[in-house]
Amino acid sequence: MAIYQKTFRLSTQGHCDVVDITPQVGRIIQESRLRQGIVNVSGRGSTLGITTLEYEPGCVADLRRALEKIAPSNSDYAHNARWGDSNGYSHLRSALVGTTKSFPLVDGQLGIGTWQQVVLCDFDDGPRDREITVTITGE
Amino acid sequence: MAIYQKTFRLSTQGHCDVVDITPQVGRIIQESRLRQGIVNVSGRGSTLGITTLEYEPGCVADLRRALEKIAPSNSDYAHNARWGDSNGYSHLRSALVGTTKSFPLVDGQLGIGTWQQVVLCDFDDGPRDREITVTITGE
Amino acid sequence: MAIYQKTFRLSTQGHCDVVDITPQVGRIIQESRLRQGIVNVSGRGSTLGITTLEYEPGCVADLRRALEKIAPSNSDYAHNARWGDSNGYSHLRSALVGTTKSFPLVDGQLGIGTWQQVVLCDFDDGPRDREITVTITGE
Repeated sequence: MAIYQKTFRLSTQGHCDVVDITPQVGRIIQESRLRQGIVNVSGRGSTLGITTLEYEPGCVADLRRALEKIAPSNSDYAHNARWGDSNGYSHLRSALVGTTKSFPLVDGQLGIGTWQQVVLCDFDDGPRDREITVTITGE
Repeated sequence: MAIYQKTFRLSTQGHCDVVDITPQVGRIIQESRLRQGIVNVSGRGSTLGITTLEYEPGCVADLRRALEKIAPSNSDYAHNARWGDSNGYSHLRSALVGTTKSFPLVDGQLGIGTWQQVVLCDFDDGPRDREITVTITGE
Repeated sequence: MAIYQKTFRLSTQGHCDVVDITPQVGRIIQESRLRQGIVNVSGRGSTLGITTLEYEPGCVADLRRALEKIAPSNSDYAHNARWGDSNGYSHLRSALVGTTKSFPLVDGQLGIGTWQQVVLCDFDDGPRDREITVTITGE
């Protein structure tokens, strides 16, 4: 059993920018030379999300619309009132979607579907630099 | 430290079919002979979910009703408009619920509650064959 | 590679009590003396959630209000009708938020943001004693 960990950075546009990070995760898996195990993909911060999606413009638009319904960007938030902030909705979306997911590593490949990608969703209210850590335990 | 990984298949009815997969996960844990570690349970695909639930018809009905409110099956979706598909709501539900969960392995048992089961939710709009991978790292 | 696992207990008030458990998780990481790996944080039970949040009263209030909209505590639930229970909404919230999250262990620290805490949300309808298991695989 071994462990391989790498952090990469990414600039996003915020405002529910959805970025396909499957290629970056795949590259780190290749570097690791590990074939079987668990791959954890985690974003650092309280206003982003990590999940999976068929990465095509339709699904991205549907996800943005649904989150706008669940946690509207223009609603009143206690977080905003308390701190003079404007990203209360971003915190809420992050807590609901989660900032981390783990996947199986199978025969040296990420064990996801053909039409399934790992995405970073930046829920914050402007451009951000993000840090994503990929950790693989396996052999 | 060792790793044990196994993939099993399952036929579902789709339409938010909720299937208790705790027995299958338990069998794989037994085969592994591992006693302590992390157990990752992952479904392959972008229209399913893996989560936990008290597996009884009431909770299943409540979950189906709530998801129908969050991502209605009969609403308009950009995914459908773009691809002539009808499962835009399924993709959305999958992105929100997530396709993977990890649990502790404690004394050779899955570390969940007595009234808590691991469930596969098939959000797609018809019967599907699903692949679920269970990966255990531990000793 | 090694494994370190510890379970701690916590009394909550229920009713969407949100408790910052980052200190407890941090202490277990310190005890483990591990520096790099994956940290799984799991609550046992079907009426709680584990997620991350900027732990300040505003974000907590916003999360409670949002969950009250998604799964209202005073609505009708099939779970309640079937079992004479009153916590159908708690089961629903738990299935949607999830009872477990995994994080990277980076240089002996939990790989989360400065304004990001690991929280236990007790969705049940009264005080409960909860068991949280922290499992670290790494080196």
